Amino acid sequence: MNAPQDLEPYFRDFLSHEAVGELAVLAKNLPDLTREDTLTPERIKRYRVSAEGFDLLYFGELVDDRILDGLQRLADQAGLVDQFLLMKQGAVANRIAGFDSENRQVLHTACRDLFSDRPLAPEASRAAKGELEKLSRFLKELADGAICNHRGEPFTDLLQIGIGGSDLGPRALYLALEAYRMPERRVHSVSNVDPDDMAQVLSTLDLSRTLVNVVSKSGTTLETLTNEELARAAFARAGLDPARHFLAVTGQGSPMDDPSRYLRSFYMFDSIGGRYSATSMVGLVMLGFALGLGPVLELLKGANGMDQAAEEPDIRRNPALLMALLGIWNRNFLGMETVAVLPYSQALSRFCAHLQQLDMESNGKSVNRRGEPLSCQSGPVVWGEPGTNGQHAFYQLIHQGTTLVPVEFIGFKECQRGLDLVIQGTTSQEKLLANLLAQSLALASGHRDENPNRSFPGNRPNLILLGQRLTPRAMGALLALYEAKVVFQGFAWNINSFDQEGVQLGKRLANRLLDHFAGRRDSDQYTGWEKDPLGRALLEATGLD
Amino acid sequence: MNAPQDLEPYFRDFLSHEAVGELAVLAKNLPDLTREDTLTPERIKRYRVSAEGFDLLYFGELVDDRILDGLQRLADQAGLVDQFLLMKQGAVANRIAGFDSENRQVLHTACRDLFSDRPLAPEASRAAKGELEKLSRFLKELADGAICNHRGEPFTDLLQIGIGGSDLGPRALYLALEAYRMPERRVHSVSNVDPDDMAQVLSTLDLSRTLVNVVSKSGTTLETLTNEELARAAFARAGLDPARHFLAVTGQGSPMDDPSRYLRSFYMFDSIGGRYSATSMVGLVMLGFALGLGPVLELLKGANGMDQAAEEPDIRRNPALLMALLGIWNRNFLGMETVAVLPYSQALSRFCAHLQQLDMESNGKSVNRRGEPLSCQSGPVVWGEPGTNGQHAFYQLIHQGTTLVPVEFIGFKECQRGLDLVIQGTTSQEKLLANLLAQSLALASGHRDENPNRSFPGNRPNLILLGQRLTPRAMGALLALYEAKVVFQGFAWNINSFDQEGVQLGKRLANRLLDHFAGRRDSDQYTGWEKDPLGRALLEATGLD
Repeated sequence: MNAPQDLEPYFRDFLSHEAVGELAVLAKNLPDLTREDTLTPERIKRYRVSAEGFDLLYFGELVDDRILDGLQRLADQAGLVDQFLLMKQGAVANRIAGFDSENRQVLHTACRDLFSDRPLAPEASRAAKGELEKLSRFLKELADGAICNHRGEPFTDLLQIGIGGSDLGPRALYLALEAYRMPERRVHSVSNVDPDDMAQVLSTLDLSRTLVNVVSKSGTTLETLTNEELARAAFARAGLDPARHFLAVTGQGSPMDDPSRYLRSFYMFDSIGGRYSATSMVGLVMLGFALGLGPVLELLKGANGMDQAAEEPDIRRNPALLMALLGIWNRNFLGMETVAVLPYSQALSRFCAHLQQLDMESNGKSVNRRGEPLSCQSGPVVWGEPGTNGQHAFYQLIHQGTTLVPVEFIGFKECQRGLDLVIQGTTSQEKLLANLLAQSLALASGHRDENPNRSFPGNRPNLILLGQRLTPRAMGALLALYEAKVVFQGFAWNINSFDQEGVQLGKRLANRLLDHFAGRRDSDQYTGWEKDPLGRALLEATGLD
Repeated sequence: MNAPQDLEPYFRDFLSHEAVGELAVLAKNLPDLTREDTLTPERIKRYRVSAEGFDLLYFGELVDDRILDGLQRLADQAGLVDQFLLMKQGAVANRIAGFDSENRQVLHTACRDLFSDRPLAPEASRAAKGELEKLSRFLKELADGAICNHRGEPFTDLLQIGIGGSDLGPRALYLALEAYRMPERRVHSVSNVDPDDMAQVLSTLDLSRTLVNVVSKSGTTLETLTNEELARAAFARAGLDPARHFLAVTGQGSPMDDPSRYLRSFYMFDSIGGRYSATSMVGLVMLGFALGLGPVLELLKGANGMDQAAEEPDIRRNPALLMALLGIWNRNFLGMETVAVLPYSQALSRFCAHLQQLDMESNGKSVNRRGEPLSCQSGPVVWGEPGTNGQHAFYQLIHQGTTLVPVEFIGFKECQRGLDLVIQGTTSQEKLLANLLAQSLALASGHRDENPNRSFPGNRPNLILLGQRLTPRAMGALLALYEAKVVFQGFAWNINSFDQEGVQLGKRLANRLLDHFAGRRDSDQYTGWEKDPLGRALLEATGLD
């Protein structure tokens, strides 16, 4: 296979697409969803698209057929699906032309492209398969007792130490699928450098039965290394040998790639960024330990299925692409700054925290792929909490506030655990779904009342993602759906969705302050911060001087 | 004492204050924090105010002395502190003039005004004291074994069932103070009507040792009653008598005020709205069980201390008032739609979820206190996650995105649990603080780089709230600080921050859909939804028909 084409021909600014001008005109004449002849049963049935077990219902968005046609033209003119395909084939999508940048391929899709004879990026899929086989052997050794603690007992708990992509995605997936875990296996996570985080989690664990999975691609992440040391000290205090308990997920050749310190090492690759790494070993070691290999493969199948569905060029037949364009519609043409993701599923309680990283770290950018200032708004603020909880918290603002918040509802027809009762004529799951559907309708249709404080303006855009049941396969599909959505939006805005230079300045300044703390500890005569008046003033003003 | 004055003389629109016009002019000439002669050591030291153990550092906000003077005039012209005092004395602050509304006093401050001989609202404080004494007796009976399970064993776990204000505030406080809990006592929460939520929590409990605290002022909250029934069914299956295990926190005379079904009932009052109720029995029963009475009193003292500090009319000496006005500056004059609350403390992991309700349900409104459309923007979208986690997630957007997000950092000089080590020259707590301070500085000062992708524009407004250690007293102060901030902003925007009519429409529509589900279950010939074409279309489109 030849090297895939560069994406540079697609480095065209958002405003340069003809469709953008057309859409700006259409935005002046929006459909009025509070009218009975607009929000009709027919609209509800027609504005719907399905893929990989999910229905996307978008009757509640401020679009009509003409606007959808315009969004289709935008998708075509920006070559969104073409770029997506090239990315999957190994294009160097992580770069800024003309400036120093990471210059990497973007191949998170390859690590689940394991089920066909002709993967799109064969080398990356082969490498992923190799790690998966390593994991499979490891899980087998755990199951048959070849790996056990010094007393010959099986491991019951796994503590994941990682931060950012090494924490949020894996943690969200574990919580989403905890209903399916082996009864004797549990997973815990520590990410924050806050020492109370580690102390709290350690206080609940029997270390002699615990594996620790340390995850850092570079092997140098400050928080992760610090927490690893705290954990190693706790193992030492308990008289346990860390080398029998600690696993590493890291880049090959990183300082953490050291068999003398880790029971096993699993590899991460440069072509998979942290926030896209949940279906690599970053998430799969933890999930494999908790769920076993079968559910892990189901997760990958679901993700792979959605990756394939995202290749469809017709926006009315591709949920990820459509969600990307509806988001662009709300963001760039209707001026909305945020998007609320509201899952009616307690198991998805941390999914939104993962999406915050996925979306905001990918698309919270101000320069395009040539390093020029953007001509348009880019990524929105993503936030949300599970329904129905949110209804009793912040929905007041979504219904009646002065700021418009587009909403993405997520729900499932069946619950996971099957413990449900009919109370007052309906099950809890029915109550959950009725609330989800009702909120969608209420936001769109609004309601006029003589009491102005009880009036609802309506026309508050929202969509519904509905699945059958939150299984490993469904979770894989949902994850990949949002990954593809974010990638499509980045392509449309002409930004590099795969770097994160915006986190560097804070790191540098933190190291400067840490030098002061360490210098002061080293020597009574420490004078280093005399050269750093702002740092010193800050320490003085906070009483940390 | 006479009945306090009505607030109606203060029902003046935001735009009617002279200071608003002046501030709009000042907003055209903002200080440039990227300049070394603006962001000086002197500024860092001077832009700081302290109360009840917290320092507020606001050098990173886009204000100068003239702007602060303008904000002071706005506070004075809108009578913010006067209204706050009247509220504390029992003014009917929860009303819309000329329309049907709740017409209630707003006296959450009274339930912690227990430490002086002359409380501002004596009757409400007396009632709160009565409930606190009830709680004290109950805790004593638990401790001395007078209350125990059928085998004579002490209760070890308490499951709180509530939603919205009966869940978010109490849960946030418990997590914040879990480090201080009695080792043999644990608290759990279920809020969501999602049946998997209750199933997951029940699977971890020994019901014979568990108390269940059901919290609903009306005694009719759908989610709470449903979850109570699920819990009662589990107790019945375990052969346990719920009347020995269930507690109620509810309004006097509500359907839940029933001694035959509950071991104890504690009362909530109409003058304390759900989102302001964490320091009433709604939070204190749970916290008292976990921590004991002493820490509960400390929490109330901290809150009471901040309530008093919030009476200071000088914005430069009143952190709550200043935070309110800085928020108004960012929202109404600089056009920012959201605010991120970023605690550098894992124990505050759910504090932001509480603030979402507190702020967005209070101030996400579009009509003023006379029922007229607002002339200004009101409450922002509140969101956030603990640092340093957030740094590895969404800070990219905050530093380099196209949307400006004002930030409120929260931190503490000491950790709670004292399990900390020097690693690479510094402790974890020092690393945590260095990161907090560095982020604040980085957002304000920015950084120019030849590589545009590595440039930071700076001038991204932020403030720091710094305390010594997250103790019960500090938590009380922090909670009351934010409550006062939200109330001040509501007064300034001339809205009723104490009702939540915006949650009603969704509830009504959900009940309509639930009628369909129940009707269908009742009868094969159910035809009810023929009168409800939209509901039917929705059920058909989702395959729930």
